[in-house]
Amino acid sequence: MVLFVIGLGLADEHDITLKGFEAVKSSERIYLESYTSILMVPGFKERLEELYGKSVIMAHRETVELEAESILEGAATSNVAFLVVGDPLSATTHTDLILRARQSSPPIPVKIIHNASIMTAIGSSGLAGYNFGQTVSIPFWTEEWKPDSWLERIGENLNIGLHTLALSDIKVREQSAEDMSRGILRYQRPRYMLIPQLISQVVSAAQSHKADYLHPERTLGIALCRMGSEEERIVSGTLQELLDMANPTPEQAQAEEAEDDADELASEAQLEKRRADRAEERAKKAFGEPLHSLVIVGKRLHPLERDYAASYASSGSKFLEVAREVYGCKE
Amino acid sequence: MVLFVIGLGLADEHDITLKGFEAVKSSERIYLESYTSILMVPGFKERLEELYGKSVIMAHRETVELEAESILEGAATSNVAFLVVGDPLSATTHTDLILRARQSSPPIPVKIIHNASIMTAIGSSGLAGYNFGQTVSIPFWTEEWKPDSWLERIGENLNIGLHTLALSDIKVREQSAEDMSRGILRYQRPRYMLIPQLISQVVSAAQSHKADYLHPERTLGIALCRMGSEEERIVSGTLQELLDMANPTPEQAQAEEAEDDADELASEAQLEKRRADRAEERAKKAFGEPLHSLVIVGKRLHPLERDYAASYASSGSKFLEVAREVYGCKE
Repeated sequence: MVLFVIGLGLADEHDITLKGFEAVKSSERIYLESYTSILMVPGFKERLEELYGKSVIMAHRETVELEAESILEGAATSNVAFLVVGDPLSATTHTDLILRARQSSPPIPVKIIHNASIMTAIGSSGLAGYNFGQTVSIPFWTEEWKPDSWLERIGENLNIGLHTLALSDIKVREQSAEDMSRGILRYQRPRYMLIPQLISQVVSAAQSHKADYLHPERTLGIALCRMGSEEERIVSGTLQELLDMANPTPEQAQAEEAEDDADELASEAQLEKRRADRAEERAKKAFGEPLHSLVIVGKRLHPLERDYAASYASSGSKFLEVAREVYGCKE
Repeated sequence: MVLFVIGLGLADEHDITLKGFEAVKSSERIYLESYTSILMVPGFKERLEELYGKSVIMAHRETVELEAESILEGAATSNVAFLVVGDPLSATTHTDLILRARQSSPPIPVKIIHNASIMTAIGSSGLAGYNFGQTVSIPFWTEEWKPDSWLERIGENLNIGLHTLALSDIKVREQSAEDMSRGILRYQRPRYMLIPQLISQVVSAAQSHKADYLHPERTLGIALCRMGSEEERIVSGTLQELLDMANPTPEQAQAEEAEDDADELASEAQLEKRRADRAEERAKKAFGEPLHSLVIVGKRLHPLERDYAASYASSGSKFLEVAREVYGCKE
């Protein structure tokens, strides 16, 4: 029998291909991988079950690592479908399961059914997929830990004129340090990095490394939000312009400060939480719900790319000016 | 109404997504773009028509450039579907049509439905999409014209350790110079570059530029053939090993030479044609029918990538040895 490894595409249950759908229908057991990918719509598992008329098993990291044997055992006697949001092989995450299947005795045939992923959706920015360098992932910084090895990779791309896709961090099924130390298995609310935080970290890393290849006013970016969904939102501009979209207006800032001052009983932690919530709300207002990704535009920008990407800039943006003066894209 | 720009995916009519299929069914006119993409199965248009229960209009380059107005006119009053093999926006080829639609008065809403493309299918090589640099296209060389600016781009990728996807040239609806000079509109048989010619050109360009970053015995490659189809074939090895797979054995070479010698009446042109046909036949025997693409492996090869990619090497291949000794991939 066959182990199908099936990409679900970008946004919802209808992004599966006809071929993938047939494979699911021919499968006795259906696993939904749920640790590298985000499920874009609420109740995604139930929506899949309704579409397929079959039950779907959630496969968390523990499941896939610990129960690979049982997944493969099933595949020895009937078809098994392993569903992955996006394309199933954009990262090497699932190669272990596939290699194990092929090395079983007797070998279990594996069939990969590809689909669109964020690495395909970058085309919607107007930039050609050909002109992208390596992709980077930007992890959440904490007070104590601010890894930034990804900056060097962005620099490598920019130095040869290439665009960079920067993926934002996702924290799902994370435990708090406190719960972990007490042995309580409880997951925190999922967190998704939004465009403003992503850009802040990029700009801050560039400043602390004195990286001359990246500057908020002279580097162009394209925010790609909820790609492939009905709420898809694409915004282009200088990195600073994108940041400013989620900054409070002077009036807002004043009102918020007044609110904080009036609330004399609030602790520092409460104030901090409130500020973070406001920032998140503004970010979502500007860019929509997660997932957010950012394209950092390279110097080899072609006029056809520029024209399309510029159509996503807000009025008053310096996109075209920077493209012309800094990027040398003049035609 | 809506202009749907829909990716058809990698291989056949069942690679469209459920969402794309619904969009096609809601459309009054359906165009199939047929100048940047190859149709992997014979009678593809008819197969689409049967699946859709609707007729499909072939859109050659002339159609899309000259008849953009009429395509868009249709979209003003009813849905129009514009189908593209692979993902519709991997290149900037169709951004002009999309921009025109959005700039029409009143604007025509455009909905992009993404799908897998060869840039997604690279994951099947076992290499992570994250670690790829820019993509290059390798054009057919002729006696007179051997462009090789793509070599520098491969070098840029290799110098920072990144993998390169090299796409092979496709010549469809080409006219001969003779027909063109006589004003005869007649197309030549489509030509697709196969792995041996692709690698030969890469190696030859590297040699003539004395490029030390690429060497047939010390650079690893992964041939990706007919990705996503039932005849998908993936082969890894050193570039030289991949070349050798399509070289004649000494016995074959001898027999072929004898055959040519015996045929005293053959002209030089006939002999050349015969040799080219034999080479093509051997290439297809080793790698299957087109389309072929090649991944050139970069030094930042990760052990997980290596293990998966090595599973596609023939027995006796030096893949692991080169990965260890040249690439420094030791774990």
